[in-house]
Amino acid sequence: MSERMTLSIDAMGGDNAPHMVVEGVHLALKKKPGVRFLLFGDEEQLKPLVARFPDVESASEIRHTSDVVTNEEKAAKALRSGRNSSMRLAINAVHNGEADGVVSAGNTGALMAMAKFVLKMLPGIARPAIATCFPTMRSQTVMLDLGANVECDAENLVQFAVMGEVFGRSVLGIKNPSVGLLNVGAEDLKGNSSVKEAAGILQDSDLPISFYGFVEGDDIAKGTVDVIVTDGFTGNIALKTAEGTAKLFGSFLKESLTSSVFATIGAILAKPALNKFKMRMDPRKYNGAMFLGLNGVCVKSHGGTDGFGFSNAVLVAEELIANAINQSIREDFTRVHGDGDDVAAAE
Amino acid sequence: MSERMTLSIDAMGGDNAPHMVVEGVHLALKKKPGVRFLLFGDEEQLKPLVARFPDVESASEIRHTSDVVTNEEKAAKALRSGRNSSMRLAINAVHNGEADGVVSAGNTGALMAMAKFVLKMLPGIARPAIATCFPTMRSQTVMLDLGANVECDAENLVQFAVMGEVFGRSVLGIKNPSVGLLNVGAEDLKGNSSVKEAAGILQDSDLPISFYGFVEGDDIAKGTVDVIVTDGFTGNIALKTAEGTAKLFGSFLKESLTSSVFATIGAILAKPALNKFKMRMDPRKYNGAMFLGLNGVCVKSHGGTDGFGFSNAVLVAEELIANAINQSIREDFTRVHGDGDDVAAAE
Repeated sequence: MSERMTLSIDAMGGDNAPHMVVEGVHLALKKKPGVRFLLFGDEEQLKPLVARFPDVESASEIRHTSDVVTNEEKAAKALRSGRNSSMRLAINAVHNGEADGVVSAGNTGALMAMAKFVLKMLPGIARPAIATCFPTMRSQTVMLDLGANVECDAENLVQFAVMGEVFGRSVLGIKNPSVGLLNVGAEDLKGNSSVKEAAGILQDSDLPISFYGFVEGDDIAKGTVDVIVTDGFTGNIALKTAEGTAKLFGSFLKESLTSSVFATIGAILAKPALNKFKMRMDPRKYNGAMFLGLNGVCVKSHGGTDGFGFSNAVLVAEELIANAINQSIREDFTRVHGDGDDVAAAE
Repeated sequence: MSERMTLSIDAMGGDNAPHMVVEGVHLALKKKPGVRFLLFGDEEQLKPLVARFPDVESASEIRHTSDVVTNEEKAAKALRSGRNSSMRLAINAVHNGEADGVVSAGNTGALMAMAKFVLKMLPGIARPAIATCFPTMRSQTVMLDLGANVECDAENLVQFAVMGEVFGRSVLGIKNPSVGLLNVGAEDLKGNSSVKEAAGILQDSDLPISFYGFVEGDDIAKGTVDVIVTDGFTGNIALKTAEGTAKLFGSFLKESLTSSVFATIGAILAKPALNKFKMRMDPRKYNGAMFLGLNGVCVKSHGGTDGFGFSNAVLVAEELIANAINQSIREDFTRVHGDGDDVAAAE
């Protein structure tokens, strides 16, 4: 890490970019001053936006490029032809050592492909995983993989468990985080072959993991464990199902609270409380999916978010860097496999 | 179907059985009088309960057995040793033609194993699927499979699509129900091999299905399509994730509305509206998972539900019977495969 933490930002990624990106950087600076930003994107658009926020202006440097990866672009094509895109240049800055991590709200597939290609994997890890925190009855739970790998074998799941455990320990500050495998039932007999095999490995191994066993879909919100491990297909559907249900709930609630005069007056009286409630379930608060397993910090913001949401993705990247997440993952894998680089070379 | 619709009830299944079962039958009779009930279970416990509800007493017949399948019992063991259980005898009544359908709040795995063994599959269908309706922004969506089959191939998914479409048409009364395949992205390239292959079959075939394409987790609550098809692993996790999220939302809301005097007064004023909202999201309203594909109507109630929840499971069974769901599925499969029995025999 350079002396002063530096983040490279894909300023052109996201539905409301670059405006919401610059606003997000401003809001993140308000919470954590002292961070430097490299903003990759169209200088003509960025300059007047940055000028509106003196804190952003003094903390950041614009790196001009007019190339952008669109949301529709296939990952493979973006990888071939997006070499001068804001996304690619922002990732390159991490690889060059100019930045300690990168944040983008652009095309997820392209970001993952480019980050894998440029940053490479940490030694001993076969595949990256997308991870994010969910609000729970207890506090929060980190879940991975949320969509990087549609099909996962037992070994992938075990590696996700190790990375999730490191995240829980070093970033969330949980002393001995419990790790559960997402399944359709708590009994040993249930589930597909990958989760059954992974459970066997996690139970028998001498990995430094407090393995809880299987958890079910409702355990995510219950907060039964600190870390939930699943394949990217199931994880992505669980994430989006939870988001959809929360939206449905919110929309039904709003309808009810405007359905009569009494309800409306009641809602006005309860407004501060309802706002606190809204804040607690606000998906923007949980914005910022981490690509774990890469040799570099890379955070993906939701494409449709606003400045507040983007600022949270920036803060996630800062947390990962401040807690040296990749150093910890590297150490854990080295301890398990012997010298990490040898393992990587042998694969 | 016998002249008067008859349902056989596993009166001993569920955490609060037999009390909640008898109350559920009473509540179902209030909504739909004229149905007959065969109550399988311990006569000594059932008699005084039934005596409390004159409508239940006159509409039902107690069939005594002291055997019960417990929640902990493995399906295979229940199948071997539960031949005199309330669950098994209730299923037998459908096979014998004494009843038009069965409802149980007991052990799901045992119920599925017994129902498959006793009732057998409909011709042309390889595996049964568990289906239930979800509340959506538009109205409701039926999703299947929710846990009967942990691993599904493309052909299974296609059969689920046909059954779901029939359900949408004949029970929900939707003219041309749209069917979507649950996936991690809407693009053709995404997803595991089963969903990709199933999409290919559904797109190219001359099945009488309005195939929408892929849908994602948040499309469940959006109500993007009328029928969502998925494998039992993903479906079970999506169902329980949605349930867990709704509970979390409800609990956060309750906390907020009791967090200050103003909030509490507001909540009192808005109470009728909040109750309507609660009712709209009430999981008991959506209680009653259908086992589709069996040669007989079988509905599984949530084990932890109360009388109101159980009454809804009873009403689901009545709807399936009244709309001759299995006759429609049989006709659809015969039309597609030629004579259905030949297909079944060939498998």
